[in-house]
Amino acid sequence: MEDRWFEDYLPGTTTELGSIRVDEAEVVDFAQRYDPQPFHVDRAAAAAGPFGGLIASGWHTCALMMRLLVEQYLSPVSSLGSPGVDELRWLRPVRPGDELVLRTTVEEARRSTSKPDRGIVRTRVELVGQEGRAVLRMLATNLVRARPAQDRDLRP
Amino acid sequence: MEDRWFEDYLPGTTTELGSIRVDEAEVVDFAQRYDPQPFHVDRAAAAAGPFGGLIASGWHTCALMMRLLVEQYLSPVSSLGSPGVDELRWLRPVRPGDELVLRTTVEEARRSTSKPDRGIVRTRVELVGQEGRAVLRMLATNLVRARPAQDRDLRP
Repeated sequence: MEDRWFEDYLPGTTTELGSIRVDEAEVVDFAQRYDPQPFHVDRAAAAAGPFGGLIASGWHTCALMMRLLVEQYLSPVSSLGSPGVDELRWLRPVRPGDELVLRTTVEEARRSTSKPDRGIVRTRVELVGQEGRAVLRMLATNLVRARPAQDRDLRP
Repeated sequence: MEDRWFEDYLPGTTTELGSIRVDEAEVVDFAQRYDPQPFHVDRAAAAAGPFGGLIASGWHTCALMMRLLVEQYLSPVSSLGSPGVDELRWLRPVRPGDELVLRTTVEEARRSTSKPDRGIVRTRVELVGQEGRAVLRMLATNLVRARPAQDRDLRP
């Protein structure tokens, strides 16, 4: 992770990396601060509501996904942030106790023409639940620094 | 907010609602849990990094936007959740101390054909900074319950 650069994101590569468990107290805590709808914060109301029980805020699910991306996919030496994501989909409710795995597929990686020290990486990102079905999907765009020239010269 | 239903989301309507201040401690706290990249969690590293200072995680900005949507735009009587968003863009860095206003424009509202007790509302959502420029933009899709029939009959 400390030596991952633009050149290391190879289109067509799919990996399954990391896993995170959805904790009920954290679901409620996140939602009380940022998304206090009944089906996220109130167990009794949630049971009677459209999802039949508490579910995580979709933004909480995104935040959990981001933690896995930072731990497993992006590198502090090369990550330059993101201009945005497309086609963000909350495909299935995420419930306390669920175990989610990060699946990434590099869709495209192209060198910036205006700033050749970096590239644009487009990644299909999914979180996959314990039954093997995706609960979240998006197409992420990341700006990633290219390997410094002196490093390239030193490599065999 | 307690009496807002599918029929109340009128295409073409733009509103500016609510305001939220970005707090530095919260920026760092959110990022330490969910997005611990140097430019979100470490003031000194951030100053030397690509944004010249601490910026909020894009997912934190989304979470702040969601709080305003729950307080100002969605209703607990009719909100049935969201299948996703499109064209999510982090347009400008969000920094501690920024004041963000929620701007919503109803782009489309159509009754569900399969479940006529609800509709699909598509909303252009923006967070606008103190200098009047959007820092976040997305196209949100929400499922919203229609006004119950007995309510409709009672209205003048």
